[in-house]
Amino acid sequence: MDVFIEPIGRLINQFSKLPGVGKKTAQRYAYKIIGMGEAEAREFAESIIYCKQRVKYCKVCGNFTESDVCDICRSRDSGTICVVKEPKDVIAMEKLHEYKGVYHVLHGVISPMDGIGPNDIRIKELLARLNDGVKEVIMATNPDVEGEATAMYIARLIKPLGITVTRLAHGIPVGGELEYTDEVTLSRALIERKQI
Amino acid sequence: MDVFIEPIGRLINQFSKLPGVGKKTAQRYAYKIIGMGEAEAREFAESIIYCKQRVKYCKVCGNFTESDVCDICRSRDSGTICVVKEPKDVIAMEKLHEYKGVYHVLHGVISPMDGIGPNDIRIKELLARLNDGVKEVIMATNPDVEGEATAMYIARLIKPLGITVTRLAHGIPVGGELEYTDEVTLSRALIERKQI
Repeated sequence: MDVFIEPIGRLINQFSKLPGVGKKTAQRYAYKIIGMGEAEAREFAESIIYCKQRVKYCKVCGNFTESDVCDICRSRDSGTICVVKEPKDVIAMEKLHEYKGVYHVLHGVISPMDGIGPNDIRIKELLARLNDGVKEVIMATNPDVEGEATAMYIARLIKPLGITVTRLAHGIPVGGELEYTDEVTLSRALIERKQI
Repeated sequence: MDVFIEPIGRLINQFSKLPGVGKKTAQRYAYKIIGMGEAEAREFAESIIYCKQRVKYCKVCGNFTESDVCDICRSRDSGTICVVKEPKDVIAMEKLHEYKGVYHVLHGVISPMDGIGPNDIRIKELLARLNDGVKEVIMATNPDVEGEATAMYIARLIKPLGITVTRLAHGIPVGGELEYTDEVTLSRALIERKQI
C-alpha cells in the first residue's frame, strides 16, 4: 500500500509542478486543500481554469490580456515602446507607475546555447510596429548575457530607422532579474536610461 | 488600472491562501499556470476538486480515506493503537514501514489557550474503540506543551482500563550532536538513559 491514498498523491504531484515546490511543500498544500470547505476548494480549482481560459496574449504587444488588444496598448502613448523578455517584466515596470508608454514582450531572449535564435522570439512583430509615430524604443531585457545580447541585436536593427534606442541604466544589479529588482533601483534605471 | 488583470489577480489570491505562500510566490505559481497547456491546467484544477471530493475521514480512526473505513483499519492489527494529532502524522509513521498496528487521529490537541478542550478532539471516539482486544495505546502526539498535556490526559483515562499506555521516547536525535541538542531534550536523554 502506498503512503498516500490516490487522490492525495495525485494532488501532491500536481502541486509539485509549481516552481520551487518539492514533495514536502506540495504535501502541505494538499492538506490545506483537504482542510478547505467544498465551495472554497471548488473556487480555487475554478480560478485556475478561469485564468487559463481568459488570459490570452495581446496581438500587438504580447502581454497578458483578456481581449484581443490589451488595455495598455489601447490607452497609452504608443510613441515609446519598452521591450521586455516576459509578461512578468511588464508587471515589474507597471508597479513603478512612472512609465507612460507601451510595451513589447519578446517572450524570450536570443540564447544560442538553448537553440533560441532571433526568429524564435517576437522581433519581427516589434519591427512591424515601428511606424513614424515611434520615437523611442527602450530595451528593458534582463541585464544578463542573453538579455544584453538581445538588446544589442535589436538596437542594431532599429537604429538605421532613425529611432532612438535606449537601455535601462545600470543601477540594476548585473546578473539579476527584472522581476526581483527593488522598485527604487528599477525606477533609477528607468530615469537614467541611455542611448545605445 | 490594476497591475494584474482580473483572472490573474484572482488566481494569485487563491494561491496566496496556501500555507507559507506570499504575493510574490503566488505570482510565480500563477505564471506557471498560464504557461501550461489547456489540458494540463485543467488536470491541475480537476485534481483539486477530485481530491476534495474523494478524500473523507475514516469513521474508525479519523485518518484520510476514500471509503468509509480506511485500509489501515481494515487490514492491520487492531491490538495496538497509535494516537496522533493529525493525518499527516500517520504519514510520518507509515514512512517507517515498521509499525504494524492501527491509528487514532485526534484532529487536534487539548489547548486551553485556543479554547480547545477534551470534547473538541476525538477522545470519546478513542475510548469507544478500547475493547478487550486492545493491548496497547501508543501516545504519539507532538512533544510540545499541548501534545504532552493531551497525552497525559488521555493516559489517565485509559490506564484504569488495564491497557498499557506508552509514549514515544525522548532523546537525542540519531545523527545529531550533543553540543547542539537543546537542554530540555538532553536532560530527558540523561534521565531516560539505558544500560548497554
